[in-house]
Amino acid sequence: MPRVHNFSAGPAALPECVLKEAQRELLNYHGCGMSILEMSHRSAQFSEVIQDAEDTLRRLIGIPQNYHVLFLQGGATLEFAGIPMNLMRTGRAGYVVSGNFARLAWQEATKYGTAEVLASSEDTNFDRIPDLAPVAERAAAGDLDYVYICQNNTIFGTMYHELPDCGSTPLVADVSSCFLSLPLDIKRYGLVYAGAQKNAGPAGITVIIVRDDLVGAGPALACCPSYLNYRTQVDKNSMMNTPNTFGIYLCGKVFHWIEDTGGLHAMEQRNREKADLLYGALDACTVLRPTADPASRSLANVTFRSPSSELDAAFVAGARERGIEGIKGHRLVGGMRASIYNAVSLEDVKVLASYIEDFDRSHRSL
Amino acid sequence: MPRVHNFSAGPAALPECVLKEAQRELLNYHGCGMSILEMSHRSAQFSEVIQDAEDTLRRLIGIPQNYHVLFLQGGATLEFAGIPMNLMRTGRAGYVVSGNFARLAWQEATKYGTAEVLASSEDTNFDRIPDLAPVAERAAAGDLDYVYICQNNTIFGTMYHELPDCGSTPLVADVSSCFLSLPLDIKRYGLVYAGAQKNAGPAGITVIIVRDDLVGAGPALACCPSYLNYRTQVDKNSMMNTPNTFGIYLCGKVFHWIEDTGGLHAMEQRNREKADLLYGALDACTVLRPTADPASRSLANVTFRSPSSELDAAFVAGARERGIEGIKGHRLVGGMRASIYNAVSLEDVKVLASYIEDFDRSHRSL
Repeated sequence: MPRVHNFSAGPAALPECVLKEAQRELLNYHGCGMSILEMSHRSAQFSEVIQDAEDTLRRLIGIPQNYHVLFLQGGATLEFAGIPMNLMRTGRAGYVVSGNFARLAWQEATKYGTAEVLASSEDTNFDRIPDLAPVAERAAAGDLDYVYICQNNTIFGTMYHELPDCGSTPLVADVSSCFLSLPLDIKRYGLVYAGAQKNAGPAGITVIIVRDDLVGAGPALACCPSYLNYRTQVDKNSMMNTPNTFGIYLCGKVFHWIEDTGGLHAMEQRNREKADLLYGALDACTVLRPTADPASRSLANVTFRSPSSELDAAFVAGARERGIEGIKGHRLVGGMRASIYNAVSLEDVKVLASYIEDFDRSHRSL
Repeated sequence: MPRVHNFSAGPAALPECVLKEAQRELLNYHGCGMSILEMSHRSAQFSEVIQDAEDTLRRLIGIPQNYHVLFLQGGATLEFAGIPMNLMRTGRAGYVVSGNFARLAWQEATKYGTAEVLASSEDTNFDRIPDLAPVAERAAAGDLDYVYICQNNTIFGTMYHELPDCGSTPLVADVSSCFLSLPLDIKRYGLVYAGAQKNAGPAGITVIIVRDDLVGAGPALACCPSYLNYRTQVDKNSMMNTPNTFGIYLCGKVFHWIEDTGGLHAMEQRNREKADLLYGALDACTVLRPTADPASRSLANVTFRSPSSELDAAFVAGARERGIEGIKGHRLVGGMRASIYNAVSLEDVKVLASYIEDFDRSHRSL
């Protein structure tokens, strides 16, 4: 079987050229006589690999020197604890609950201090980003350690098209599923973090970008595990212990691929073209309907459904016959979800859009 | 350059056949049209991968059903916190401080309760496993939640040749650098865990084997991050969030390789042959001297040194000329260290032993 059209939500499609390069050098990295998988994280070669990954990411996003870059493990779920443990200095933070992962992050934070829900769209099953005016209003009081958002809600197919105005209160964002798919104005944030397994690389790496003043002299809470101590990890260059070396290596290759194909502006343009094609096809449908509020539509995860779970299953089965994989919606919402991350090509999206049109047409009369 | 003789302490040598298999299927896993790196952790294919890895490990070690197997992230360092957070139910545990990582584990535990040092070899710079009689004596009081040991001390080249008798007090062991290099009598332990990057696979995976009664209804401490909650991770089969899928996949392949080459008894035999050869060569030396107490010598990490740091550097430089890599000692102790994990062949060790003899001979008269 040739390679499929992979619309998985994460782990997700990687650039084929990155995989081929990794394949080529898997037994012997740059002629040094061993695999990157077998190499000490303290070796000269790996030091170059991690430094180059950081440098490339800094160029891509335009990260100023007062922000640190970390490559840690444990995914967003571990940072749900790491963020309050490091940043809740006065014990009070605000959360915007715009989806499942935002809710999980908020729940976790309640273990470590007062985590206020500043806005929520749970009443309409997270079909939109909630109104952000109350967030700005609450942040203006100046007594929150940070305001937390999940910038793209993978499960529900929504994303922020503008950021809340938090004044001087640090904005903390889980950008997992929109990371590197469009430019990131890092100066608007105190901290952003992303599970790599959508746009940045393989599963097993969390990229964290954090402003120096927030790292301070150490974590806010004494119970913070040393591994989660951002101060130590910054000082040790993400290597207080053995990092996921292969994951960092592969992220570096993906960063170079983004740079070589035009950087984040070019990536956004391609992603908008892909999203427009797909939403356009869905908006023209009768049987299939996009589920997210049009004003909150995600650039990365396009969610839609038919009138019945039987028809949804038929859509997924038919997709598989055309080499379209990873299209089934998350178990919390059902329906379908097409994740059109950076490595998903316009050609892949055209195949799906064409199938959507065919499926809709052939089921209209039923 | 052909593949070198890799004596790295971790990440470390992997079986070449495992790397070749991974290389072959890197773009298209078992003909499914995508890379293992691009595949949903909830897919049928990956569910098989993780189940097969666990099943193979259970067969290798002989793990009974009342023990759970977890594949987590964050390395031993994260478990230094995870273990007390989960297991310190009455707030008191005992630690044997036999090396750097044992000491770090003990220090971390003091943040979460009373962590008593039951025995230590710090007075002789960890050149041996301390006398275990006081450990048994203290454990017999029955008021410790667990007794913690680091079973092989990678930096200092020592290992336990017998376990402390802890009676009914659960024994918790960091087995990172001796995991799968010899049989493991799992019923002697309450919990063992290992960073995979020595004998089990790549960096980025922590294998945890834990007895059911210790997992209980949840962690001992309310501040335990959800990611570190063994109860939840057991219930979710290590997938409360996206795991390091590639790491688990590669560990599974290494487990199969061990099984296919005769299992843990055969592995121990080969490892003893390698260690005997190396210690034999070193014991016959005049200039080079093994550093660990003979009764505590590690089967995995053979530490030795010359009389001066200049000569140590000359040894390391000469080694490189013969294709011998990863031989420099840890920065805490200097000298040399040869890690002869499972994937290091007898041939590799012969090359090193022969170089040791040559070097010693040619430096005797100096």
